[in-house]
Amino acid sequence: MTQTIAVSEIFGPTVQGEGPLIGRPTVFIRTAGCDYRCSWCDTLYAVLPEHRHEWALMAPSDIAARVDKLAGNQPILVSLSGGNPALQPLDSVISLGRRSGHCFALETQGSVSQPWFANLDWLILSPKAPSSGMATGWAGIDACLKATAARVRCALKIVVFDDADYAYARAVASRYPGLTTYLQVGNPAPLAAEESANFGPANVDDLMRRLRWLAAKAIEDQWFAATVLPQLHVLAWGNKRGV
Amino acid sequence: MTQTIAVSEIFGPTVQGEGPLIGRPTVFIRTAGCDYRCSWCDTLYAVLPEHRHEWALMAPSDIAARVDKLAGNQPILVSLSGGNPALQPLDSVISLGRRSGHCFALETQGSVSQPWFANLDWLILSPKAPSSGMATGWAGIDACLKATAARVRCALKIVVFDDADYAYARAVASRYPGLTTYLQVGNPAPLAAEESANFGPANVDDLMRRLRWLAAKAIEDQWFAATVLPQLHVLAWGNKRGV
Repeated sequence: MTQTIAVSEIFGPTVQGEGPLIGRPTVFIRTAGCDYRCSWCDTLYAVLPEHRHEWALMAPSDIAARVDKLAGNQPILVSLSGGNPALQPLDSVISLGRRSGHCFALETQGSVSQPWFANLDWLILSPKAPSSGMATGWAGIDACLKATAARVRCALKIVVFDDADYAYARAVASRYPGLTTYLQVGNPAPLAAEESANFGPANVDDLMRRLRWLAAKAIEDQWFAATVLPQLHVLAWGNKRGV
Repeated sequence: MTQTIAVSEIFGPTVQGEGPLIGRPTVFIRTAGCDYRCSWCDTLYAVLPEHRHEWALMAPSDIAARVDKLAGNQPILVSLSGGNPALQPLDSVISLGRRSGHCFALETQGSVSQPWFANLDWLILSPKAPSSGMATGWAGIDACLKATAARVRCALKIVVFDDADYAYARAVASRYPGLTTYLQVGNPAPLAAEESANFGPANVDDLMRRLRWLAAKAIEDQWFAATVLPQLHVLAWGNKRGV
């Protein structure tokens, strides 16, 4: 029997706004449900059970068909996002998508590992800093990395709001010296946007101020192996979806 | 006898604002002099002979010492930029910098190749689209690629202002299918900034409009292998230097 997947939204192609694949045309599969409740979560509509009526239980073949259609039957980068996409049985989606030539990146906090992480092209681990209100389970992150194959490119992406978050990012990077660390400025606006994916265009100045702060901090600290990036979709499109 | 190098400025560390290394802490060595005169050049102070009195002729060891000092004697990414840095004898700067653990990326239009391109970590070829007013010499670009060693990562970065530039970028990418192409939105403001490296903060909306246009164009065209990026330093710092 085929397992169904809880989906919040499938959209794109748009430009990936974050992390190692920033700027790349991407179709997003945002799965529903999460084992975390980050204070600054910008996709609560994919996390909170009270949004369950907006979610769809979809067969892998239907998801794959939807991706193919959005991409006009051309190979594209597919981002598996959430919520926590590691909670869903996405192996069939990946193997079906491979037949269409797609690449797959999965972004997760690292709390749950899956054997099918070995079939990804990219695993982007995004452990949550203190400002999230969540505690990090290192064993989970270790297990995620262990589940990947040699061909899977792994990276760390850490959202930084303040000094404590920065110190946390430094500690995570020290724990995983083989991974490139992407520091991303936090966006405080989504707290007010629980009901919609639109933040409004008003935060660009604030985000740029935060970016300058974060860049200066990493440079002052001589953390030259870090990569400091904004959320491009928020800057350019003023929303979470970048469309 | 040691050859001297014409230098416009050495600055950093700041965050690389463009291309494949976007977001990476970087020290910039901007060499002086250029064989091109792009209509929208944003570093005319490093290009036009009438700025010669602002340039310095520096020994490689002095340049290397300056980079080490700026980076606090820590290994860092060094960007060799210009002007056209391929016009300068940078091999000694690279070999001296290697001893300090630095990585080297060179960005050039591809008109002039050098045997020491084989010693780079990154070669970023930035042929100039029609809006520049310059013609592309394909043989030069071929020679640049041929000069690199297998370890050198090569990429294309093309500034796009309009439809003709976009068509040019498409053609360049087709000619070099093995290279990743970074499309970058053009910034029309520097035309007014010949006398200074500061553009002022007023262009963010315009740049974001251009970014949305360029992203939509690549996506509509199903050019999913492209990467579409803004000039991060212009967005965040409002100037060319990102400091």
